This record gives sequence, C-alpha cells and structure tokens, in this order.
Amino acid sequence: MNGIFKHMAAPGAEYRTDLPIPEVGPTDLLVRVHVAAICGTDQHIYHWNEYASTRVPVPMVFGHEFAGDVVAVGESVRSFRVGDRVATETHIPCGHCYQCMTGNQHNCEEMKIIGVHVPGAFSDYAVIPEACAWRFDDSLSYRHAAMLEPMGVAVHGVFSGEIALQKTVILGCGPIGVMAVGAAYAGGAAGVMAVDIFDDKLAMAKKLGASELVNTRRDNLVQRILAWTDGRGADVIIDYTGNVGLIEEAFGGLRKAGRFTMVGLPSKKLSLDLTNAVVYKEAHINGSTGRLMYQTWYQCEAILKSGAISLDDVIGGVYDMRDFERAFADIAAGHPGKMLFLTDYGKANGD
Amino acid sequence: MNGIFKHMAAPGAEYRTDLPIPEVGPTDLLVRVHVAAICGTDQHIYHWNEYASTRVPVPMVFGHEFAGDVVAVGESVRSFRVGDRVATETHIPCGHCYQCMTGNQHNCEEMKIIGVHVPGAFSDYAVIPEACAWRFDDSLSYRHAAMLEPMGVAVHGVFSGEIALQKTVILGCGPIGVMAVGAAYAGGAAGVMAVDIFDDKLAMAKKLGASELVNTRRDNLVQRILAWTDGRGADVIIDYTGNVGLIEEAFGGLRKAGRFTMVGLPSKKLSLDLTNAVVYKEAHINGSTGRLMYQTWYQCEAILKSGAISLDDVIGGVYDMRDFERAFADIAAGHPGKMLFLTDYGKANGD
Amino acid sequence: MNGIFKHMAAPGAEYRTDLPIPEVGPTDLLVRVHVAAICGTDQHIYHWNEYASTRVPVPMVFGHEFAGDVVAVGESVRSFRVGDRVATETHIPCGHCYQCMTGNQHNCEEMKIIGVHVPGAFSDYAVIPEACAWRFDDSLSYRHAAMLEPMGVAVHGVFSGEIALQKTVILGCGPIGVMAVGAAYAGGAAGVMAVDIFDDKLAMAKKLGASELVNTRRDNLVQRILAWTDGRGADVIIDYTGNVGLIEEAFGGLRKAGRFTMVGLPSKKLSLDLTNAVVYKEAHINGSTGRLMYQTWYQCEAILKSGAISLDDVIGGVYDMRDFERAFADIAAGHPGKMLFLTDYGKANGD
Amino acid sequence: MNGIFKHMAAPGAEYRTDLPIPEVGPTDLLVRVHVAAICGTDQHIYHWNEYASTRVPVPMVFGHEFAGDVVAVGESVRSFRVGDRVATETHIPCGHCYQCMTGNQHNCEEMKIIGVHVPGAFSDYAVIPEACAWRFDDSLSYRHAAMLEPMGVAVHGVFSGEIALQKTVILGCGPIGVMAVGAAYAGGAAGVMAVDIFDDKLAMAKKLGASELVNTRRDNLVQRILAWTDGRGADVIIDYTGNVGLIEEAFGGLRKAGRFTMVGLPSKKLSLDLTNAVVYKEAHINGSTGRLMYQTWYQCEAILKSGAISLDDVIGGVYDMRDFERAFADIAAGHPGKMLFLTDYGKANGD
Repeated sequence: MNGIFKHMAAPGAEYRTDLPIPEVGPTDLLVRVHVAAICGTDQHIYHWNEYASTRVPVPMVFGHEFAGDVVAVGESVRSFRVGDRVATETHIPCGHCYQCMTGNQHNCEEMKIIGVHVPGAFSDYAVIPEACAWRFDDSLSYRHAAMLEPMGVAVHGVFSGEIALQKTVILGCGPIGVMAVGAAYAGGAAGVMAVDIFDDKLAMAKKLGASELVNTRRDNLVQRILAWTDGRGADVIIDYTGNVGLIEEAFGGLRKAGRFTMVGLPSKKLSLDLTNAVVYKEAHINGSTGRLMYQTWYQCEAILKSGAISLDDVIGGVYDMRDFERAFADIAAGHPGKMLFLTDYGKANGD
Repeated sequence: MNGIFKHMAAPGAEYRTDLPIPEVGPTDLLVRVHVAAICGTDQHIYHWNEYASTRVPVPMVFGHEFAGDVVAVGESVRSFRVGDRVATETHIPCGHCYQCMTGNQHNCEEMKIIGVHVPGAFSDYAVIPEACAWRFDDSLSYRHAAMLEPMGVAVHGVFSGEIALQKTVILGCGPIGVMAVGAAYAGGAAGVMAVDIFDDKLAMAKKLGASELVNTRRDNLVQRILAWTDGRGADVIIDYTGNVGLIEEAFGGLRKAGRFTMVGLPSKKLSLDLTNAVVYKEAHINGSTGRLMYQTWYQCEAILKSGAISLDDVIGGVYDMRDFERAFADIAAGHPGKMLFLTDYGKANGD
Repeated sequence: MNGIFKHMAAPGAEYRTDLPIPEVGPTDLLVRVHVAAICGTDQHIYHWNEYASTRVPVPMVFGHEFAGDVVAVGESVRSFRVGDRVATETHIPCGHCYQCMTGNQHNCEEMKIIGVHVPGAFSDYAVIPEACAWRFDDSLSYRHAAMLEPMGVAVHGVFSGEIALQKTVILGCGPIGVMAVGAAYAGGAAGVMAVDIFDDKLAMAKKLGASELVNTRRDNLVQRILAWTDGRGADVIIDYTGNVGLIEEAFGGLRKAGRFTMVGLPSKKLSLDLTNAVVYKEAHINGSTGRLMYQTWYQCEAILKSGAISLDDVIGGVYDMRDFERAFADIAAGHPGKMLFLTDYGKANGD
Repeated sequence: MNGIFKHMAAPGAEYRTDLPIPEVGPTDLLVRVHVAAICGTDQHIYHWNEYASTRVPVPMVFGHEFAGDVVAVGESVRSFRVGDRVATETHIPCGHCYQCMTGNQHNCEEMKIIGVHVPGAFSDYAVIPEACAWRFDDSLSYRHAAMLEPMGVAVHGVFSGEIALQKTVILGCGPIGVMAVGAAYAGGAAGVMAVDIFDDKLAMAKKLGASELVNTRRDNLVQRILAWTDGRGADVIIDYTGNVGLIEEAFGGLRKAGRFTMVGLPSKKLSLDLTNAVVYKEAHINGSTGRLMYQTWYQCEAILKSGAISLDDVIGGVYDMRDFERAFADIAAGHPGKMLFLTDYGKANGD
C-alpha cells in the first residue's frame, strides 16, 4: 500500500508505495483510510525533535487523526462490522489500571498512542484496536470525521469545567484553539475572546464564534480582559499554546474563583505566584489531556449536529498524501487551520 | 398615588387614585415604578383562589415584578442611591436561618414575598428592602428589567444542573416556559424541544430558540422525544406546568441518568414508579424555586447581553395600569407571552 | 459438580451433585467458588415470584454474590491469570451502548445479570466474563470478598452524592442497609440514623456505626429526625426498603436542599407532593442501582482497609451449601445479617 | 480596658490598661472577650514584617481569633442580642461586589480584616459587625469557640473538594495543619498522612487522626506517598506551609486526576512543570482562603459535635493576656499547637 513512512531517526519522511497492509489481530479492525489530518505530534515526528526521538520506534508509518471504512475485523470483535465508517481515538488504554477502571481510560497509566508508539495511518490502510474505533454519525463527512480527534482535545478542555454563560478566553488559535473557540461558543459561553499573534488565525477564530479578538503583538491581554469584564476578570481561561510567558500574564486576567485550564504542553516551567494568583483568588487550575472515552466524542457530534459551527471553517488545506512535504511546510510557515491528506481511495470516493 | 388595590377577600381588584405613598424604613428603598409585569401569583390573588386566601393580608396593593427608579433611600442603606434604576428580587430572606447562612437565601426557611405577604408594586411607588434590589445593566430597558424576576425563575430551573450540549425538553410555554427555552438555547443546549397545547405559545417558543415543537393535543410526547434522541431519551426535562399527568408521561422520555427538574407547582400528587422511572434509570430529580440571590440575576443579564435571545419576543401585551382587568382577561383567555403594565410615569419616560 | 439448581418454574430448588462444570469462552474465567452469599434476588428466584418468573430461564444454577479462585482463563483474557482470587461484579454490560460508552456500564441499556439471565454461582464452579471479575485485596478473606457486591450496592447509594459531614438517615437495616450505615459512618457522615422495625437489625446497624436508632413500630420517624437536626431536617436520606409508605413519610424529615436517594425497589407507586416535598424544598432525588464499574469496588476496599467497620458484623449465618433450605428459611423468618454458603472447597481452605 | 496594643510601626507591642472601650455602630456588636488565639498574622504584626507594615494602621489593638459574650448591640442589629455567646468571622465583606453577591463573601473583592485593617480583639472588649458574628453551639467552650476561625481555614481547605475515602496528605502540622488532619479524618478520608519537620508537631497530628507521619528531615516524601498508595499517588494533597520547595516535591506524589489544594501563602514563586505535573496528570489545583460564610462554620461545629476529634488536642498553651510576650516567644521557638490568651473576664468565668 501507499503511505508516509518515517524511515529513519532523523528529520523528514518518505512516501512509499510498497508498504505491506498491516495484519489484523483478533480484537482489531482494518480500516481503509479516506482522510488523515496532521497533528502537532506529527510535526514533532516529521521534524524529529526530542519528543519524537524518545518515543517513536522507527521505521514506522505515522499519523493518527483519520477516518475511513472498516474492511476487515478480528474474530473477537463484537461491536463493529465491515462497512462501518469509523474515526479513531488514538489513545490505547491498558484496560486494567486504576484510571481505566474508574472511567478515565483516556488518562491510562500505561497509555500507548497510535502513530507514536504503534504504527499509524498516513497510509491506505490502518489497523486499530476495536476499543479505539468510533462509528461516526451518518451526517458527517470523512473530512470532518478525521477532525473529531483533535476537535475532542478542544472540546475536552472546554468542557472540563462549566462553560455555559462563562466569559471565556482561549489562548492560541491553531487548529485546536479555534475548535475550542467553536466549542465554547456552542456550549453557551457568554462570549469568547480569542488570543493569538496572527491575524489570519484570529480571523478563523471569528468564524468559529469568537466575539473578541486579541492580537498580543498589538494588544495588552490583561487590559483587554478587564475592559471586557467590567474589571472582574474572565470566568474561564483555557490555554492551547503551552507558552508559559503568556500563561503567566493571563493569570492577571482571571477573576476570583475563575477556572484556568491547561491543554498546551510547555517545554519550560511555569513561574506561578501561588499567593496572589491562586490562593487569594481561590482559582481553579486543571489539566486536560486527550478526550474522554467516549463522552467527548458524543459532545463533538452534538456540537456539529446542532449546526452551531462548521468544521469547514477549520480546514486550512487539503492535500494529496503524496504532497505531504508541502503540507508540513505550509504548517511551518504559519498557515492557519487544519491540514488534511486524502488517500487515493478518499479522492475517488468523494468528501 | 395610583395603584391596583386588592380591597377585599374576594375575586377582583380596584384601581385607586388615592393610595398613600408607602413609608421608607431605614434599610428600604422607595422606587418610582415604570413597568410592572403580571405573574401567575397575581392571577391567584386577582381571582382569589386558595393559594391567595391563605397568604395575602387584604386590603393591599399586589404585584411584584417591576422596574423603576430609586427616589428615596433609608438612612442605613449603603449600596444604592437616588437615581439608581432597579428591578426587584421578590423573595425577602430572613438573613439568619441555615439556608440564608449557607448561600441559599432564595430558599429561606422564613421567606416573605413582596406583593404576597407585604405590599407590592402595581402602583406608582413601591417600597422594597435594600436586600431585594437589583441595579440592572445600562443596556436594559425598564420593560426588560421588569421581566428579570420571572426570567430568573426560568433561568434558575435551567441552570440547576448541566445544560450545555444537553438535549432539553421544556414542558409548558407560558411566559416562564418560553424564557426557559431561551435560557436553554443561550446556555448551549444541544437542542430544545418545547411542549404545550397551544400553537401560538409554541410559535413564541420557536422565536426563543426551540428546535422542536410538540403540541400534546396532536403529538405523542414520548414518541417524539425518542425519535429525536435516537431512542435514548432526553438528557434534561424541565417542567413549568405543574401538570402531574404530563410529568408522569414525560418520565418515559427521560434517558438513563437524565435530569428532571420541577419548577411548576402541582396541586395534585404525582404518582411515580420509583423502580423503573428513578432507580433503574438512576434519574436525577430536583426542585427549583425562585432565583439564586444573585447568581441567577447575573446569568439573566449575561444571556440578554449576549444577544442570544430578546425579551421583546416574550412580551404578550403592554397595558395602561388602569386597564388591568383587560390584561387579566387576556391571560385567562390563553393569550401567549408576558403582560406588562405601564404607570403614567413609565409612559411618560419612554421604554 | 455440586450446586443449588433451580430445576423448574416453581418455588424451591434442588441440591445436585451431578452438574457439569460450565464451559469457558475466550473472554471468560472459570472460578472455583469458596463462598457465596444470598441476595434478595435469590429469594425472589427461590420463592419464584413475578420478578423471577419474567426473567430467569430455568433450569439453571442461580446465585451471584461469591468469591473464589481462578482455575482457568479463556484464550483472549489479558488481565487475569490462574490463581487470582476474585469476586464478581454481577452486571454484564454490553460495552457499546451510550451508557457503557460514557462511564456508566453499571447502568447499561442492555444489561445481563449473572445468576438471573445467565447461570450463577451457587455451585462448585462458575464462569464469569473477564469484564466482571474483581481481583480483591490480599487483606480480604473470601467471606468478606463475597460480600463486596452487595456492599457495593450500599456504597454506591451512599456515595451517589455528598456524604461527609451530612446527617444521614438510612431506611432499612437488612444486609445492604446496615452496610450503608457503615459506609456513611466511614465516609464521614455527621451522624447516621438507622431505621427499621426489628430491634435486632437496629442493633446490627449500631455495630456498623449508627448513632441514632429508630424503630418505626414505636417511634415517629419525622419527629425523631427533626429533634436530631434542630428542626432543620436530615441532610441525606437513603432508602433501602422500597416501602413507599415509609418513603412518603420520610420526605417530611428532609431538609431544604437535602438529598433523597432511592435504592430500594418499590412494587407500588410513590405518591409525591411535588410542590412541598420537592419544588419548595429544592430537594434532590436520585436513583442508585448496582455499583460503579469499578469506582465503587475501590471505595468498598478503601472502607474495609481503613478499619472503620468490619464485615464480620454483617454476617448473619454461615451455612454448608447443602443446607440452603435452612438459610432461605432463616431469612424468611427475619434473621438479621447476610447469609453465606460455603462450598466444600471453601470449607477445606479456611476462611 | 486592658489590651495588647501595637503602639508603633516596629517590632513588639505593649500591654495597656487604659484603652477606651470601642464604640458600637448601628450594625455592630460589642463583645466582652473571654479567650483570644494567636494567628500567624498576629505574629507578622507583632514582629512587624512586610505583610504587616503594608496593611496595619498603627496604633491599634490587634488579634482576631476570639470568643466572648455580646454586651451591647447597635440599633439596627436584628439577629443577635445581649448575652449571646459569639465567635467571630474576621473577614468583613463589602456586601455588594460580584463575589459577595454570588455566595462568596469570604472572597470579597474589597475585603477588610478585623485586627488587620480595623481594630481587633486582644483586649477586654471588641466591636464587630453583626455580619461577622457567629453564635456558637451550646456544647462548645469559649476556648474551643475561639479556635473556630482558624479551624475554619483548615476545614475550608479540606472541604474545597471531595474528601471522603480519599487518601489525603496534609503538608504542615502547625495549628491549622493539625486541625486539617482532624477535619480530613472526621470527613472520612481513607487515611491521612501528616508531614512536617518537627516530631512533636507530628505527634499532635497523630492525636488528631493522622495514620501516617512523615518527617521530611528523615523521610523521602514522594517515596512514602507512593509506598502508601500502591504506587498510584495520593488522591488529595493540601498545603498549609507555603513552602514552594515542598510543594514542588509533593507534586511527584499526586495521583493522576488528583487534587492539590493550596492554603499556605508562599512568599516565593512556585516553579511548576505544567506538562507533567498538571496536563498529563489532569491534576486539579485550587486555592482556598478564609472560610465560607457560613457553611464552613456549620461544618466545623458538625465535626466537633460528632466527637471525632477534640480541640483540646490542638491547644499548645494558655496564657494570661499580660504574658503575651512569652506566648509569641514560645511560638517563635517552634512549640506545637495553638496558643490562647485569657482575659481577666475569661479567667474569672471558667473555660
């Protein structure tokens, strides 16, 4: 089969046409891929930074956000059948740790990740465990279904606390950030302030429902928040940047008893004034990772089916899988939105 | 001053022009009334049913939903001044019972109600305790401000549990019911089904954001809910009717682990199959009364300021206070929406 | 093998010595049973009432509360091995319905129950799905492990809302009720009032931590609650009786904003004054069934390992499995506590 | 009257016998003090560090933890009368900010503090606003009542999240820390690990219910936590030290999805690895300050009335108010427990 192959422990990848179709275990599904999307993790792998080099067993097909058709099932599979249209939860839980046993499979103590620890889906076919498959709603296209996984990161962060009627600040307007804007808007936020340093990304956030746009190259974030909230501070701030300087600054705009949710993954340490930013404010800080399995998926579909937002407004580009180098280059150049790959099968079969 | 006077313990009331302006105690405000609105409770008092006869000390001015200007303040008043535009929380809490001391003043163990236990506001002037005054947002008109109190009943019911992304059924499309439709819509419900027996009330609900309309004279409620929810049942059902037959029926449309909030006040007992409707479903039932003091008021204003809904769509009629008999007759005839009274001062001073 | 065999659709059962050892499917465990316990459901099956006749496919071994050793595992089993000491979650979830997919497997829309819909464990060996096995803590005996399942019903009800520092009333002091008393006590309730009509059951509740005992044959329940709570009402009431008359009465002792949890399964309908008992009180009512899979099991073990209570105080009798008729007769006669069966293997291997 | 007088902006204080009895405003109570307790804040004022010099308007009587008898009331006071036994909430809320209006008076945006911003209670008489008075339970002594305020700091931190059945680590065994140990124990924690560097303080924690003692001069905190929790990490960690090094270390012992509550007030910034300590763990961090007005006070009394713990075990010393210098010296020397002052009136009138 065809696929984007991380052939060696160094930057780059190869498009191969001679890859073997992966084997299907007894609890696995074989999926014919229509569409795949590029995650920040894929950029780490492509560019081969430390995150990648300490995790990914090359050579391997990578990529983990995708949608396709089930074309074969293992003999113990009970909930799926050939012909099902599926998207993929990329976290593979162990199933028996304390987190898995108490409803937090998404935060498993021994997590494996598709396309990171095991082979992925930038290819014509992919194998996934039955436990990671999501039969998506008939009303969704494959393109949108392929974006459910990153949309879930956005949605899980937004819904990791109360959102209805909250004045909400979203830090970062990459693909997940703008989907978080949309999720907050659809979830009844009393207004959504989108924050970034690129105006075209802010413009995308506006399409997704942002009522306030802050370009921190020009605007003072805390002043803007206070002006917007009668000096009280934002009810909710959610970070999708991992930029510790921005996060530290944003604490100044959080109201007493407000929520600050951390989704971005800083490489530096946060310097936090616990006394004033947390204790005296009775602030709530929480981390959010991955997606609830599968509450978040239902939430994503509920948002999309309500018509409140459209994922078309998040798509930054659609590429033939062969043109993967151009796609990675466009991302590196700061193009807004989510970049999608089509397989030949996806191209031949519409949406 | 002028006012609608409940002169005797019998149906009816009198419009008087010779009423004394009420005296202002040390912790009170004197309010010049612009607009007042008619509550179901006012109908009880007007028609003099058992609810009224066991509570209301006639003769007395009644009415409790209103907005106006502060024209005098008692000597101990600290938070308000002459000229403030205020609406009124009608529940007067004692301030020292367990409920008052733990953030539930709205559910005080020794509650008094303006216009029920003490004189009200269908009159040119009204006196209210400072603790019951709400300085409403500059962006609101007096007409809308007069509706914040009943809107609060709607909003408190809707937000007494999670609403964002919930498929929500609102039973009853009287003024409070349609405001609940609007609150659920604004709060990010994944869809709102409005239920009534009058098409014009359902049409009003649609303006407030209902995505599904069910006329139970024609439609089977449970079938409609199940069809709408892929057979799973509604996430949230909120009753604003007090109709026990309808409530009993609606339990059949509640999903497992769903919420059923009771706001309406039945005069009959509910017959409840605990085993199947509650235990095996792990249903949550909760009662909701009044408004949080003052979280709910902030929520009401957040909804209105977001622009998600307009209270103009809830107004059923605006009457000169002298025409009160016609207003009560229109309500009795089933006219949809909230009926408002204007005082001469209100008429002279716009909106 | 030996076992208690429900041989026909009529009252009674037979002790058989010639039963076949059940076959182990690919995702199953074969368990050699040490101890089994008698549930109310088993009494329904034994006496063959309507609950049983509409569900149980005779002939069949019944019984579902038990503990033993894993002696064989199916080829797809990953989390258990021969020699593991296990107790059993008796609810078999489908794994793919909305409830199963959102952390509520215990409330599956297509639930099967071991010993009800499929063969049970009043026998030398039992087969259970891997998904229903719980490897119990080394510190627990088989006898106590066999009681984890019914203890879980108690614990799930108690922890279905806040319990710490709550004045809590437990209605019913059967085996599950007294374990609920113990769970509330261990969970930091500000006091536990146990309610029953038998003094020996109340005495058992006292051993488990009840601070107040109410025999409703002698005492007025609501008066006792109000006297105990300075007239305010109980914070939490949990029913384990299914007695609608008692439940209706108890609402009079619930404080405003209190919680009333329903675990018992009434055969009659509850007559509920929504206006006064629910709306004006802003009461919370919730149903609780089964046990969270597996949060509740961790909670049960946390309680037992803390030493706050001992399950020895709950054991009402230990019988040779051959003496099952005597055990059922003792329960019918109103003997307090949980009745246990030992298999020959259990007798030979201590505790 | 007699009192400890902070006469100048420098270390130290004077015992005066000629102070005027403070005047009672219309909404105030005059309290004859029996017992007062020394807070960390009082040490700041006594030793005159930066915290004090930027807040306290000398000359002034300080001290704010106390209990006594109401001997006069202002003319607008409604809920208290002469003869009431009262303790004091030291936070004076403004009553009209967003926090005050939404149930968070304890976190008022314009907070004043008795004994810091306004005169305090290390004196024969003190004046407090009616809004800050708590009529304590008949079963409590004045000594214990004077400790309700600091106990409330402990209790509010412990109950700012779930505590029942949680394995809980308390950092710091000063007076508030050991009361937090007691609160967690009484609240049904599955075990309480107390952490300090002084063995006599740990011994006091043990009396209050600690099941594990960790002296970080000898023990590795994270290793001890992991050994205690089967490697999973503590469910709850609460800091009462403000020691950022200890807090940073303790994050290594927090389980996934665990709670870390901050009560101590660091003077240095926390260096926090958001990625691993918060995001990937989905940790919850929350600040806790003061006491809920007045939910926390009810909780404190519920704990004491249950008999689960005794405040006698927290008393570190009882001094004549004249001996205040010795009391402050004993605290500075590291003596464990809460130090109390008796007025002459307190000495003459028992406990």
